[in-house]
Amino acid sequence: MYVTVVYVHVREGHEEDFIKASKPNHENSIKEEGNLRFDILQMADDPTKFILYEAYTDKEASARHKSTPHYLTWRETIADWMAEPRKGVVYDGLLPTIE
Amino acid sequence: MYVTVVYVHVREGHEEDFIKASKPNHENSIKEEGNLRFDILQMADDPTKFILYEAYTDKEASARHKSTPHYLTWRETIADWMAEPRKGVVYDGLLPTIE
Repeated sequence: MYVTVVYVHVREGHEEDFIKASKPNHENSIKEEGNLRFDILQMADDPTKFILYEAYTDKEASARHKSTPHYLTWRETIADWMAEPRKGVVYDGLLPTIE
Repeated sequence: MYVTVVYVHVREGHEEDFIKASKPNHENSIKEEGNLRFDILQMADDPTKFILYEAYTDKEASARHKSTPHYLTWRETIADWMAEPRKGVVYDGLLPTIE
């Protein structure tokens, strides 16, 4: 698995906007070829902080996500709500062993 | 989903030890009642850093994991390889909507 953990920090008051805008991104992303997980998480101790947990079979499938209409729409929709730039950290998903 | 993102930093030279010890923890954890994901990830840019991505249906199922034999064995086995204390961050898994 090729995993990107994306850390998102939204400005206070835009938590629900972000969740609403992320739903179609989630729903379409899980249908992409090579997608294994596209979980959207909200931090229990700080609801302005989110994680997008994006697991794909490989780097190429992950890269293709960034040219999909649902990703591009999401990116534009949420742009003004960011409290700081998003940070994506790449991991090699060791287990489960899904290719 | 009730998700705990556990950040692990191992001392250099113990990466493979950690992976080997984590495999039975993964294999048994995914069989636990209420477990949804138990992914083990290694950071692409720093192989001494790992994430355990532990998703359960609810807080109670997540808590039960900490009294399982495989968790307790794993915790003891890896103790001497830690470069710093593990840090678990709790998230509310919004999507997918699995109860």
